[in-house]
Amino acid sequence: MNLQRLFDPGSVAVVGASTNEDKIGHEAMASAVRFDGPVYPVNPSGEGTLFGEPFVDSVTDVDGVDLALVCVPAPVVPDVLAECGEAGVGGAVIYAGGFAEAGEEGEELQRAVVDVADEHGIALLGPNTSGYLVPGDELRFSFASGVEDVPAGDVAVLAQSGGVAHDLAFRSTREGYGVSAMVGLGNRANVGFEEAIAYFDGHADTDAIVLHVEGTDDARSLLETCRDAETPVAAYKVGQSDVGEFAESHTGALTGDHDLYLAGFEQYGVPTVDSTAALLDAGVALAHEPEPSGGNVGVVTAQAGPGIIIADRLQRAGAALPELGAETRERIDGILPGITFSGNPVDTGRPMPEFGEVVEAVATDDAIDVVLVYELFEEALGFPVEALDGLHETADTPVLFVSEGPPEAMDDQVDALREAGVPVYFQPERGAEAAATLARYASLRGDGVVPEPAADGEVNG
Amino acid sequence: MNLQRLFDPGSVAVVGASTNEDKIGHEAMASAVRFDGPVYPVNPSGEGTLFGEPFVDSVTDVDGVDLALVCVPAPVVPDVLAECGEAGVGGAVIYAGGFAEAGEEGEELQRAVVDVADEHGIALLGPNTSGYLVPGDELRFSFASGVEDVPAGDVAVLAQSGGVAHDLAFRSTREGYGVSAMVGLGNRANVGFEEAIAYFDGHADTDAIVLHVEGTDDARSLLETCRDAETPVAAYKVGQSDVGEFAESHTGALTGDHDLYLAGFEQYGVPTVDSTAALLDAGVALAHEPEPSGGNVGVVTAQAGPGIIIADRLQRAGAALPELGAETRERIDGILPGITFSGNPVDTGRPMPEFGEVVEAVATDDAIDVVLVYELFEEALGFPVEALDGLHETADTPVLFVSEGPPEAMDDQVDALREAGVPVYFQPERGAEAAATLARYASLRGDGVVPEPAADGEVNG
Repeated sequence: MNLQRLFDPGSVAVVGASTNEDKIGHEAMASAVRFDGPVYPVNPSGEGTLFGEPFVDSVTDVDGVDLALVCVPAPVVPDVLAECGEAGVGGAVIYAGGFAEAGEEGEELQRAVVDVADEHGIALLGPNTSGYLVPGDELRFSFASGVEDVPAGDVAVLAQSGGVAHDLAFRSTREGYGVSAMVGLGNRANVGFEEAIAYFDGHADTDAIVLHVEGTDDARSLLETCRDAETPVAAYKVGQSDVGEFAESHTGALTGDHDLYLAGFEQYGVPTVDSTAALLDAGVALAHEPEPSGGNVGVVTAQAGPGIIIADRLQRAGAALPELGAETRERIDGILPGITFSGNPVDTGRPMPEFGEVVEAVATDDAIDVVLVYELFEEALGFPVEALDGLHETADTPVLFVSEGPPEAMDDQVDALREAGVPVYFQPERGAEAAATLARYASLRGDGVVPEPAADGEVNG
Repeated sequence: MNLQRLFDPGSVAVVGASTNEDKIGHEAMASAVRFDGPVYPVNPSGEGTLFGEPFVDSVTDVDGVDLALVCVPAPVVPDVLAECGEAGVGGAVIYAGGFAEAGEEGEELQRAVVDVADEHGIALLGPNTSGYLVPGDELRFSFASGVEDVPAGDVAVLAQSGGVAHDLAFRSTREGYGVSAMVGLGNRANVGFEEAIAYFDGHADTDAIVLHVEGTDDARSLLETCRDAETPVAAYKVGQSDVGEFAESHTGALTGDHDLYLAGFEQYGVPTVDSTAALLDAGVALAHEPEPSGGNVGVVTAQAGPGIIIADRLQRAGAALPELGAETRERIDGILPGITFSGNPVDTGRPMPEFGEVVEAVATDDAIDVVLVYELFEEALGFPVEALDGLHETADTPVLFVSEGPPEAMDDQVDALREAGVPVYFQPERGAEAAATLARYASLRGDGVVPEPAADGEVNG
């Protein structure tokens, strides 16, 4: 299926656009008008203009609409979609709930919608979705308020739940990263994980894809798509405990066997994480850093306590902390005679001007595939931006930074590190998990060939 | 031991105060002068004034100093402390490392220091600590920069590591809470967890105590102190994987058997968490909310996806999600006919004006001991502040809120909810873990009597 007109439209119709501020058709229009192309509010009872755009009676009244944002209640959707089909629309977002997630009648209604979409070759996002964002192209097709604040980043967030998609997009805003795309898949009537992953794998602004998965009917197909993607993928599978009944009422999906999903993802080269925060963190690391050549992590810390937390968490997440090479140890001894702890983690005891040099020494050690640095911010010293600038490229080793300190005083230095190609995390555990995910990604991919799993049909929703 | 003069001094001497900005004696003085009482920079080679305070040659030159901040290198500490003893100093913070964490010579030096302290009845924080903060009294006795930004809150952070203490204090600043106290215990030469917990249990501004623990020689004594505290205590025990060698080099402590620690804490009525973020979150919930009467959690969500994550995480953390009472279900049906999911979680499908009423209905259900609410922020609606204001008191049920949304637009509403007595978290997992910790606290405390553990000496460092 071609998703070009769904995710990269040249013109948009908001069907059910409304002057009533309580309606989805109002919020959707409010965000849609930011798009730098024709946006038509469609409503037969609409008069005058909405956000400066004149109402039209029907989508068939305008030529060549690529994307329809369908803001009408569930029972009307099949008819509206048929009209879209007649008008030659190529993609549609269906916000309404009341389909496969809502019992037998809803399932029937969803089948009707899919039939219409198939007949007319319409790529369908939803139903039961809050839409999608591609901030870099000012495509903000969500009915949630405030989505205009989400900046353009380089991680595509593909979530089964629209609520989780928005939570992640706003979270990425709060943490200063943004997203290349945010997609709430909802009921996945004819655009599912596979189609969306394949599309954003080819999206120029997307450098990593992260998935929020509740469950899917064909897990094997999802896994194969992940394996075949050139863009790194990480996944958060929800539902370790029994949430099946509630989940099924949500997007009509079974959560399936959690452990089988986890094993399946890892078999197909997709590292899994266990929280929304870790999912974003993994995306940032995978998008910004080179692929490590293995799973060995070197830790440099200016404070021992957070270093212990990091070492603990790295090991629990399956990363290895090997001894540093003799040459590196000598080099560090030369930089800092009598250093607090000369193993791995390397602990400098406190921040100091030579801190960046120590990081550099560890990053160039052959035994180390990923470097994780912890340093409390000290205003008189700042961060070792110069020493770390582009280090991931020259050493071909990802370098991740974890810090904390007085928020305002350190803001500029955090930005400077990020601009120098060093992702900055807060909370030692989050940095450790991001580094471990990166290390695990390398371990799982091995030499780039992910082996076929042994048994057949092992992982199916 | 009386810690009054250590943690609530009337006058302070900074021994080793320095005009050299690279020295700890400079940073310590910079923060200490914020204290609203006499602060004496002590240095025999000091001339003129430092931060407006005239240098004195020796702590014996000034009368009645309560607290000495000892900013001199390890080998000189015993002599300096003896001088402090002669001068009648009652408490001392020893910042220098090079003691029990640094091999045999260091251990000997530490013994010498403790002997001097015991002889003169000095309560000693450290050595090998970055100090402490009691922001409410402008006691900012740390050498880290930026500690003046940490606001006064109501959770006391007692950390084995000074680095972790500062990470947590700055984190609490970033999240808008602050701390009632931040203490880096370091080597715990004569003030350990027990003494600090007992002191802050009696501290008027402290409503919860949270512990970062690497390991201690007498775990039983720590646990008994926790059990006897009237203030709620939560703990983060580090070191599930093998970090023993590095940890021992840090504060001279063995990390011990992790599982025994966890079991011990729970036996003695202390819920444990598994990250720095969860530790702060637990502290905020324990400090702000009434003690729940049991471990049953009711979830109300405006978006199903995050609700599923929350239900999953709550169950994994040992909380129960019981069915709501018939009366409550009827009440909710009345408020929202045809509601998406009428079980627990209650899912309203999207934010709406009646959302607060639904929360109120769940909070007053007899089957529910803790309420956790998730709602993406929608600007036109805001949060249900009025419905939730003081609800934890009228219903005698803690109410916690999780949200996400456009950061600036929602700031005021987050503040309003917090002022209404509702802790606000971001990330569904963090809210769920805070609620689960609160629920577990209630389950562990039972009717307030924590049973004696069966076997003796089961949990010892």
